[in-house]
Amino acid sequence: MHVLITGAAGMIGRKLTERLVIDRALGGRAIEKMTLLDIVAPARASGFSDHIKTRAADLAAAGMAGKAVAERPDVIFHLAGVVSGEAETDFEKGYRVNLDGTRALLEAIRGAGGGYKPRLVFTSSIAVFGAPFPPAIADDFHLTPLTSYGAQKAMCELLLADYTRRGFLDGVGIRLPSIVVRPGKPNKAASGFFSGIIREPLAGQEAILPVADSVLHWHASPRSAVGFLVHAAGLAHAQLGDRISLTMPGVCCTVGEQIAALRRIAGDRVAGRIRRAPDELVERIVAGWPSRFDARRAADLGFTVEKSFDDIIRVHIEDELGGKFVE
Amino acid sequence: MHVLITGAAGMIGRKLTERLVIDRALGGRAIEKMTLLDIVAPARASGFSDHIKTRAADLAAAGMAGKAVAERPDVIFHLAGVVSGEAETDFEKGYRVNLDGTRALLEAIRGAGGGYKPRLVFTSSIAVFGAPFPPAIADDFHLTPLTSYGAQKAMCELLLADYTRRGFLDGVGIRLPSIVVRPGKPNKAASGFFSGIIREPLAGQEAILPVADSVLHWHASPRSAVGFLVHAAGLAHAQLGDRISLTMPGVCCTVGEQIAALRRIAGDRVAGRIRRAPDELVERIVAGWPSRFDARRAADLGFTVEKSFDDIIRVHIEDELGGKFVE
Repeated sequence: MHVLITGAAGMIGRKLTERLVIDRALGGRAIEKMTLLDIVAPARASGFSDHIKTRAADLAAAGMAGKAVAERPDVIFHLAGVVSGEAETDFEKGYRVNLDGTRALLEAIRGAGGGYKPRLVFTSSIAVFGAPFPPAIADDFHLTPLTSYGAQKAMCELLLADYTRRGFLDGVGIRLPSIVVRPGKPNKAASGFFSGIIREPLAGQEAILPVADSVLHWHASPRSAVGFLVHAAGLAHAQLGDRISLTMPGVCCTVGEQIAALRRIAGDRVAGRIRRAPDELVERIVAGWPSRFDARRAADLGFTVEKSFDDIIRVHIEDELGGKFVE
Repeated sequence: MHVLITGAAGMIGRKLTERLVIDRALGGRAIEKMTLLDIVAPARASGFSDHIKTRAADLAAAGMAGKAVAERPDVIFHLAGVVSGEAETDFEKGYRVNLDGTRALLEAIRGAGGGYKPRLVFTSSIAVFGAPFPPAIADDFHLTPLTSYGAQKAMCELLLADYTRRGFLDGVGIRLPSIVVRPGKPNKAASGFFSGIIREPLAGQEAILPVADSVLHWHASPRSAVGFLVHAAGLAHAQLGDRISLTMPGVCCTVGEQIAALRRIAGDRVAGRIRRAPDELVERIVAGWPSRFDARRAADLGFTVEKSFDDIIRVHIEDELGGKFVE
């Protein structure tokens, strides 16, 4: 089978590529070929490299989506998009990349003809939900995004469902929790501190905590995110029915519980590298985010996540730090 | 004030125009000017005609939306769109008119600059909801349309909310119940019989009933639909908050109750003109439609509807038949 990954140069895209290069199979079928697409050409994975093609393309640009599906990939992981902060500061770019890019991809698939009907796994986000929230957000809670990014993701979910219902493709949308611990340098995302307060202390550096310890949030590791994508690719359409977008399971905990987990695993000295510096703007943004879900449908469909935040920290130490940290 | 109505040649558009020509005011402000826009130039209303401009335009065509808002109407009633059946049979036309046309209008408003921020009242539909349903659909039930029309309306609701949140305009979306009794000839809409079984017997003609008497549905009269639009135009943004799309109140009753109301008002002979001819396709389509809502938010915001189906029939006899029917 041929697998196409859009947004392949991003953090999740790279990790998904690594996993598929190791597995060499998806949903019980051998992978013969992979195409990695992003706005800049993604790095070629080290293994399997004769069978991997990399490509730089903007899906929203005329004709690009058609080229992307010309070789009729069997499974498409559509991860491409601009992030929440950028979609909010650059209104036009957000709609162009997140909405028009996705629509161009769906239209290219519809236009391919000849019975072409790929499985398309789309990464949506819990940003499709907006406050005020019930204590736990059920699978049938309405989509009331409070960011342009969330609005674009929700619109793409609707497109994906309609194209699937019409038989043009076979879509699954997965709403990712906040992915922690993100490897690499701190970024400017308002949610960045959820990773920073674990990553920096384990690397011997100070981390800034801009919110109260009581802030509750919904987390999953990068390894789980890749697991969600791979599991979604293998689901049968009949299992999903008409409601093809699913909130993924996550670990619900407070910032205080995150810090307690870090202390259990790495000790007082590491946990002591977190410095509290309340930031009203970040506090306000985070207050509008959903914090707890009842992700029953995803659990029933076999999606799994870490059992605790301790597990999420252990995944980071194993996958990113070679099992070691700075005590 | 200047009022623009898109889709002004349609049934609701014509009735809204008539009402505004009589009222000469909206939300407590005098109407100085009206622009009626549709794909074909709408008929000029009989009163107020020196102050009414009619215009034929396709909002989705390049530059047209810009022209439509060039004179900066204060209130825009955006009713334009292709109906449910056509959006299902002509996939491309549905997306072009219902989604791209609406987006072009919103973009033209955003691009007008100079602090232009009109009130925009958008007619959405209960087709944004899709089965399976709870016994009564609450205001926070998720949008899971099972038609392309419903998907397009739901996407427009998301756009409208995002443009409103960003301060580009001041939007309100109203999800209309099935509007009965529609005047005029029978049409091919699957929902046509809800009107037909009242309209035809009152005109001395036979009506076909393709579904069981037990089918439950959500109704409002054309007069109420116009009332919803006028009331929506006068709401303050602060009353709406971030959730600007609202399910309108309706009369929930079964087909059997519709017929009983007709019998009470017009007698056995009129009610006897309904012929039962079950149609499996129509039965199946109707089974996927929502039937009962808990439209609490709209009621709290002062939207009102008929108290019973008897009232809906009386409105039809008054507004369309000059108070008389064929006994």
